[in-house]
Amino acid sequence: MTTTTINGSGQLGRFSKQDSKDIDVVLRQFRCLIADLCQQFNGGHPGSAMGMAGIGIALWKYVMDYSPSNPEYFNRDRFVLSNGHTCLFQYSFLHLTGYKAMTMDQLRSYHSARYDSFCPGHPEIEHEGIEVTTGPLGQGIANAVGLAMATKNLAATYNRPGYDLINNTTWCMIGDACLQEGVALEAIQLAGHWKLNNLVVIYDNNQVTCDGSVDLCNTEDVNAKMRACGWNVLDIQDGCYDVEGIVRALLQAKASADRPSFINVRTVIGVGSKVAGDAKAHGAAFGTEDVRNIKKNFGMNPEEHFVVSDQVYDFFKDIKPRGEQLEAAWKDLVSAYGKVYPDLHTDFTKRVDGDFTQDWRSIIPSKDSLPTTPTASRKSAGLVCNPLAAKLTNMMVGTADLSPSVNMIWKDKVDFQHPDLKTTCGITGNYSGRYIHWGVREHAMASISNGLAAFGKGTILPVTSSFFMFYIYAAPGVRMGALQQLQAIHIATHDSVGTGEDGPTHQPIALASLYRAMPNLLYIRPCDGEETAGAFIAALEARNSPSILSLSRQDLEQYPQYSQREGVLKGAYVFIEEEDADVTLIGVGAEMCFAVKTRETLRRNYGIKARVVSFPCQRLFEAQPIEYKRQVLRYWSNAPRVVIEAYAVLGWERYADAGFSMMSFGKSLPGKDAYKFFGFDEETIAPKVRGLVDEVRRDGVECLRGEFRDLNTAKH
Amino acid sequence: MTTTTINGSGQLGRFSKQDSKDIDVVLRQFRCLIADLCQQFNGGHPGSAMGMAGIGIALWKYVMDYSPSNPEYFNRDRFVLSNGHTCLFQYSFLHLTGYKAMTMDQLRSYHSARYDSFCPGHPEIEHEGIEVTTGPLGQGIANAVGLAMATKNLAATYNRPGYDLINNTTWCMIGDACLQEGVALEAIQLAGHWKLNNLVVIYDNNQVTCDGSVDLCNTEDVNAKMRACGWNVLDIQDGCYDVEGIVRALLQAKASADRPSFINVRTVIGVGSKVAGDAKAHGAAFGTEDVRNIKKNFGMNPEEHFVVSDQVYDFFKDIKPRGEQLEAAWKDLVSAYGKVYPDLHTDFTKRVDGDFTQDWRSIIPSKDSLPTTPTASRKSAGLVCNPLAAKLTNMMVGTADLSPSVNMIWKDKVDFQHPDLKTTCGITGNYSGRYIHWGVREHAMASISNGLAAFGKGTILPVTSSFFMFYIYAAPGVRMGALQQLQAIHIATHDSVGTGEDGPTHQPIALASLYRAMPNLLYIRPCDGEETAGAFIAALEARNSPSILSLSRQDLEQYPQYSQREGVLKGAYVFIEEEDADVTLIGVGAEMCFAVKTRETLRRNYGIKARVVSFPCQRLFEAQPIEYKRQVLRYWSNAPRVVIEAYAVLGWERYADAGFSMMSFGKSLPGKDAYKFFGFDEETIAPKVRGLVDEVRRDGVECLRGEFRDLNTAKH
Repeated sequence: MTTTTINGSGQLGRFSKQDSKDIDVVLRQFRCLIADLCQQFNGGHPGSAMGMAGIGIALWKYVMDYSPSNPEYFNRDRFVLSNGHTCLFQYSFLHLTGYKAMTMDQLRSYHSARYDSFCPGHPEIEHEGIEVTTGPLGQGIANAVGLAMATKNLAATYNRPGYDLINNTTWCMIGDACLQEGVALEAIQLAGHWKLNNLVVIYDNNQVTCDGSVDLCNTEDVNAKMRACGWNVLDIQDGCYDVEGIVRALLQAKASADRPSFINVRTVIGVGSKVAGDAKAHGAAFGTEDVRNIKKNFGMNPEEHFVVSDQVYDFFKDIKPRGEQLEAAWKDLVSAYGKVYPDLHTDFTKRVDGDFTQDWRSIIPSKDSLPTTPTASRKSAGLVCNPLAAKLTNMMVGTADLSPSVNMIWKDKVDFQHPDLKTTCGITGNYSGRYIHWGVREHAMASISNGLAAFGKGTILPVTSSFFMFYIYAAPGVRMGALQQLQAIHIATHDSVGTGEDGPTHQPIALASLYRAMPNLLYIRPCDGEETAGAFIAALEARNSPSILSLSRQDLEQYPQYSQREGVLKGAYVFIEEEDADVTLIGVGAEMCFAVKTRETLRRNYGIKARVVSFPCQRLFEAQPIEYKRQVLRYWSNAPRVVIEAYAVLGWERYADAGFSMMSFGKSLPGKDAYKFFGFDEETIAPKVRGLVDEVRRDGVECLRGEFRDLNTAKH
Repeated sequence: MTTTTINGSGQLGRFSKQDSKDIDVVLRQFRCLIADLCQQFNGGHPGSAMGMAGIGIALWKYVMDYSPSNPEYFNRDRFVLSNGHTCLFQYSFLHLTGYKAMTMDQLRSYHSARYDSFCPGHPEIEHEGIEVTTGPLGQGIANAVGLAMATKNLAATYNRPGYDLINNTTWCMIGDACLQEGVALEAIQLAGHWKLNNLVVIYDNNQVTCDGSVDLCNTEDVNAKMRACGWNVLDIQDGCYDVEGIVRALLQAKASADRPSFINVRTVIGVGSKVAGDAKAHGAAFGTEDVRNIKKNFGMNPEEHFVVSDQVYDFFKDIKPRGEQLEAAWKDLVSAYGKVYPDLHTDFTKRVDGDFTQDWRSIIPSKDSLPTTPTASRKSAGLVCNPLAAKLTNMMVGTADLSPSVNMIWKDKVDFQHPDLKTTCGITGNYSGRYIHWGVREHAMASISNGLAAFGKGTILPVTSSFFMFYIYAAPGVRMGALQQLQAIHIATHDSVGTGEDGPTHQPIALASLYRAMPNLLYIRPCDGEETAGAFIAALEARNSPSILSLSRQDLEQYPQYSQREGVLKGAYVFIEEEDADVTLIGVGAEMCFAVKTRETLRRNYGIKARVVSFPCQRLFEAQPIEYKRQVLRYWSNAPRVVIEAYAVLGWERYADAGFSMMSFGKSLPGKDAYKFFGFDEETIAPKVRGLVDEVRRDGVECLRGEFRDLNTAKH
């Protein structure tokens, strides 16, 4: 019988004899190639990649829809390697299937000192054929959930009968450890809840991690658990060699009607080596002797290295033309769709190109239209964001179960839900919905959002929301977004001790230092509604960076006479000028009020003239020309600069000579009282600033050089 | 029938008529009290506390072993409120059972502006009867796993036939959201794996979170999932009123032979109110009108507030004497044990008192005994820590699946495992074991360790280990440890781009800024073996703080002629003095070599004299007298200070005028090449420093004031 699988057909006969023979050769050569690639620089992760070879053949030869000629083909299947340390697995299949960049020369750059390598130690999104950067375990599976959500959302929005513009499948490889990381467990719950039947997770079940066998730390019944989470579970017993069985399972999974699939594939780590099945096969080269042994075991010549025969290349020869045909057919489909649904087609094309579907600038409320009475910046954020979310179909907005607190619900919002879901509270949704109930899963929220953002550059703009403090749970995901240059907007409310009664567990002190230090991330603390508008503009303009908008729970004074959205885009700007000032006060976000009031108190009580700088974003300020920076901060003047912020001061020393800041964790008190308890009021701050000004008058500004002053001396 | 439960007996007859009557009154008054306590300051979380009232009666009246007269009674049952926002639930039962501090006056301070309140918005460890600080969801259940592990470990170590010194149970309340947070899901896996039959998790299943009904974001079969994770599952259908059923289930759970128990208790949030069963009952007061309504529903007088009748107080009157008897009997048991097992008794007493079981200072290797050839600081850490771990029975050392990398295994270490566990790799253990395979669960590792540390002050000293980068997953747990003043040592290896081939996903850039900013945490980067010894001394001395020891993967030059463990204790110290120096170079951790080599290059190539300061820990330095700081950093001199560290520079601006630092994420290259790629070599750094020195010579040191210089101008 000669029938083999045709990708996308969903059918599998028996493999032909030739197929079986070829597969045998591919498996042998592939495994020896991996061993060689690790041996050349005596490092890397060979074992799992070798064990997974059969899975790779099933995926890249028989099951996945993709086009090596255009790795960006929009409706391609997405493949995510959540166990990213096995990257040689993916790199080698990219090579075999004809991705242009992935030459043998490049493959051999793995673990080399070459600056131009496309083969880093973990897959990186910058490189051809890589959908997301993985490595930190558990992230990839969360990303895959996001990619599968993106498909569902786009399909529900744009597909029409006869026009399945988007119907791709997301395939995700995971190892044993991905089933231990909390972010993966959160994502698994959500994928089951949303019944993402277009998601297939393939578990490389080799039962080995660094420490030894997995049963040292995990003895759960994983299949039963996945079923309890709403997944379809399939088993493969001989994952090293039963390629036909794997193909069958993958196709069955792809055809799953109503739930995501989990394929539990038993493999042997380092199969063919002396350390097969042992933790030693995980993260080190085998040594020249065992590499020879491996080659003998696989009937290869121990004297030859990096062998890929013509038979192997020929085996994958059909992939490239097949992919080109796939894409051509898809383009034809999109064209035909354009004739029937011209408006949708326009919108869809913008999404594919990563453009916003509307002129977002015109939707941002003008300064005049914002409230002038005290308003919490979390409320201001809603005033800015909700009209955007209502009109920009590329925005998907969600919350880690804080809808009543974060104000991100717009009129007529529809939830992203399986259309059949009936909830107790009566709220329903469908896959075209763009409001996401993440549950109390901040980490998955951020990491799945990376998957949403990675579906196509700009196709989806994820907006997440939670209390700022709980972005410490999300930090590994937020970081991966920054590293991958994925735009996202994180709405982080309740951002200081002003949060109040919830107390020190909920009051961030140190977290801003992480996000201010993080490359390629905008951490923005607007001081009022106008600055909040500016913060959104900055975040929307940052097409290659995630942003965190750090917002107050409590009402904030509005400063229409001083605040400027354009100033936010520069990171910092002069808020209240005073030509012959004795001191510059730096006000930040929710604590701007203390800077403004301290200025008044200084003048009234001591005749001290203070100017005020608003400083919502350090990273944006750093990007300004030095002349602008000097003008704002007056490096040349004899007036000291004092920053006032209810966080750890770490990082402000670059811009200030002194700081009035938090020297401890917070305290459970009503917000105003919490501020007062820690000395945040003009009566406490002004005398401290006066002392500094007096010292400078007496000893000259030189006395401050390199000796930063912590003005908040209250001990708690 | 008059039989009622006797705590600890494990038996339950039918409640007496009087019991049933009393319970009815307690339930009514308790629920009205909660409503009043939230109404008085118009805030807080009433709904769940009201729903859980029956669970509380079961626990505090019938099931838990504890002594209100001595909240620190060592063998008490531990109670953890993982859904910490329901703190009024716990505070109120502490009041009713007679905890001295928890007067009605104190109860009424909830959400007040009183600085002296013992009733913060979430439970805090500082206060009587509170075992751990909770609030950030998922943390509490992880803490509870740690508390239960502590019991198992102490019992296996000290109990002898007839002498069950330690046999307490850990009870943990959770809400719906705790079953969504990844850290909880990780902890659940581990508790099942370890078969912690002394752990009972009580699930307040009210199916409501902030956003609405739980089925908006979670539709898994939780009981099936818990069973798959190795838990015993029990159900209660009427959790609001079936106190007898709850008691029966709790006792059955306590008697579980071989697994932790999960009691799924259906309750109604805000029971008795108009918003019963609705999200509105979660996080806001009911309003005066509904509070009146609640009281009517419960047969109470709407005009009376904060009513607790004598009948209710009387109902709990037996608790105090019973607790005193419990403790007295325990003390007798310990005394008797001392006569039979005097050595064990001595050791045990030290553990109870929180003393180290050995003179740890004498175990730290002397400078002479440390290697002088290049040595990775992760290896040095093993040389220091392993002898400590071998001898100090209060140390429990674990790793997030990186045993081969972190070098924390000592000779003859025994794993903490259920004694029946048979693993594929042949490694076994028992509950007296002190080496923990956490799996790839960094977050649970940190959060469970907080539970270990909280069992008794100093009774257990947890040592965790992973790559530094993955302490970003652990950050919420590490932070909770710092907030609670729980000593722990986190061994964080692979701490810079020197990590090499694993690439940017594994190379920390911004993370140190978080930990340097975090109150009450020591982040220490030692530069060689001697400083690593100093870092351990600092960490061991810090009885009220966690420490992170930040260590290199790669071999580091050793500086026996310069490095001083005593210097580490001061945070920073003069490494190489140079009386008339042109510049001070600040060297940190693994990058000290660049400071030392740059110094040599500056002298050789430019005749510039540089002194070198080693700066392993900012927080320890901040604690020094100003005179010492000035001496180390020479604030008075005209020599600029340059810090050299392969992280984001944020925070160093306090101590330096300029920095050679990382301006981007890292890159996958062999460690040495990664450093070189980013300009970390003396040939690149020295000319930059020279430029700065020239500028200062030309323009005076004043030119540097407040204008920090980033010397690493390479763009990546």
